[in-house]
Amino acid sequence: MEIKVLGRKDLQQVLEMAPVIEGVESAYRAKAQGEAVVWPLVDHIFKEQEGRMDIRSGAVLGSEMIHGAKMLNSFQQNRAKGLPVFSGMLMVFDSNTGLPLGIMDASYITCMRTGAAGAIGAKALARPDSETLFVLGAGNQAAYQVAATLIACPGIRTVYIGDPIAPDNARRFADGLPARMTDEFGIDAGGTAFIAAEDMPAAVKASDIVITITPATSPVIKKEWVSPGTHFSCVGADMPGKEEIDPAIFTGARVFADDIDQCVRVGEMELAIKGGFFDRAAIAGEIGQLLDGRVSGRRSEDEITILDATGLALLDLVTAKRAIELAGEKGLGATLDI
Amino acid sequence: MEIKVLGRKDLQQVLEMAPVIEGVESAYRAKAQGEAVVWPLVDHIFKEQEGRMDIRSGAVLGSEMIHGAKMLNSFQQNRAKGLPVFSGMLMVFDSNTGLPLGIMDASYITCMRTGAAGAIGAKALARPDSETLFVLGAGNQAAYQVAATLIACPGIRTVYIGDPIAPDNARRFADGLPARMTDEFGIDAGGTAFIAAEDMPAAVKASDIVITITPATSPVIKKEWVSPGTHFSCVGADMPGKEEIDPAIFTGARVFADDIDQCVRVGEMELAIKGGFFDRAAIAGEIGQLLDGRVSGRRSEDEITILDATGLALLDLVTAKRAIELAGEKGLGATLDI
Repeated sequence: MEIKVLGRKDLQQVLEMAPVIEGVESAYRAKAQGEAVVWPLVDHIFKEQEGRMDIRSGAVLGSEMIHGAKMLNSFQQNRAKGLPVFSGMLMVFDSNTGLPLGIMDASYITCMRTGAAGAIGAKALARPDSETLFVLGAGNQAAYQVAATLIACPGIRTVYIGDPIAPDNARRFADGLPARMTDEFGIDAGGTAFIAAEDMPAAVKASDIVITITPATSPVIKKEWVSPGTHFSCVGADMPGKEEIDPAIFTGARVFADDIDQCVRVGEMELAIKGGFFDRAAIAGEIGQLLDGRVSGRRSEDEITILDATGLALLDLVTAKRAIELAGEKGLGATLDI
Repeated sequence: MEIKVLGRKDLQQVLEMAPVIEGVESAYRAKAQGEAVVWPLVDHIFKEQEGRMDIRSGAVLGSEMIHGAKMLNSFQQNRAKGLPVFSGMLMVFDSNTGLPLGIMDASYITCMRTGAAGAIGAKALARPDSETLFVLGAGNQAAYQVAATLIACPGIRTVYIGDPIAPDNARRFADGLPARMTDEFGIDAGGTAFIAAEDMPAAVKASDIVITITPATSPVIKKEWVSPGTHFSCVGADMPGKEEIDPAIFTGARVFADDIDQCVRVGEMELAIKGGFFDRAAIAGEIGQLLDGRVSGRRSEDEITILDATGLALLDLVTAKRAIELAGEKGLGATLDI
């Protein structure tokens, strides 16, 4: 029996953002239709090594019939060693037979599907006339958020990049974005301005869409900076204690989760709920229910909308299945006889 | 960055039972020394497909510094389709950096380390003069139990095979064992008789060591069949509801677990405890504590001893690390640039 083995370079050759967005939307909808299962998250901190790992797993049944698991590692001391901080592997299986379909690098797929998740929130919940995007975070993930949102919301003309710790970093990152959009994502971003947010409050106030993608553990974006009608895709918070926006922003907002239980436990809403700014019962629904037309989204021009996206293995699995199919067609990747 | 990718055939070329037994013993000891962590088991039943999957994960720190996860699938309908019922993949990472070391087929490693686990229980707890082994189960795993026990307990002269459902199967299986011992394990079993247990009560009574390796969900081996001083390695029960021996055998026995929490929840002792035949507080300890000299084992010639082995990812990880090292030395397996 042969299975596909894909490295990062293979995945870069077969995955494009637009179909990844479609795949992630279909995974979210499958969950709303009861055709997907999220299994319990396993995580661990390696204290001495400043490392963290998590295992996300689940199944997408229905027309996909796949299940699998992804282990991601994030080891901070690697930076000083010249090694990648962030790495991982993913394995995907056929749910009709239990046989493996493929194994692959998980870091690139995670970046792509996480970009897609933030953008899907923006497309589904931001005002249709949105023109200005603020991305909090100037790390590697931020580029994927920008690319996916430019594809999902083609009206965007201005992209602000805010780095809460190192403004210099935001400048370097923003300057590099036009070339990255073309080279890495095939996006002609000629009509879009990429600006480092030197004045973070003013930039947030001027923005229609805010995406947060940092590992912050205390709120960076204050409620008083936020204009009515702003949409937030909160993508950074994925473990207890992480928080990027003022929990008061949740009060009165229309809030969606990628998975309600997981968001309450480890998402951006965790501390808003614990702090009494927001109530679990006030969650409008899951993003899949919105995409599937089971729950309505934004109700007014002035409403604040939030997608709390903690990350689901379902997104990786659907993306991985497409990658295996495309790699097969293009003759890419290695084959393992197991 | 390059990692090793190993298929079943590669693993068959690099793994030999004697060093696997040593590795498994060292993983058990690492656990007793507080240098290993077992993360929560994730499992799922695919009802319609008669399938089951589980994800076992954990870390072995100390001198090993590895962590990882293994997904195993067991899909019964595959038999009729001519596909393997049992399959899986394993990924292992460096716990100093979080970077992947390798990915590989998990079915062969699981067979090898499970054989080792049963045999380690026999070596550590059976009477040193043991000559007769009874294996309940004539499936694929049973051969690994026999091979490992012949290596760990070289005094064995008679091996009975009992199949609770199909005695014919036991006969075919026993007849094939001498050749399999030589061909698959490099064991010269010329001095050992392999006998299908036509009269199961008499065969159990004549045995010093009993290893159970079936998916039974009600006791097969009755207490009245058991001679004083018998050792049991109960290896088949690894999910709630599985049970192979009369729970009354636990009463008064000296009982060890591979992991106490996991055995209480899903092991052979689960139903013995629930049925009031045995108390969690009466568990003598974990097998690693015994191997590490922290707890004493058998206390008399007549005592019944039991190892309840539910399976730990630690065993797979240590075995996988050895396999990667050996495959590197021998130039086997594929290399993935991730």
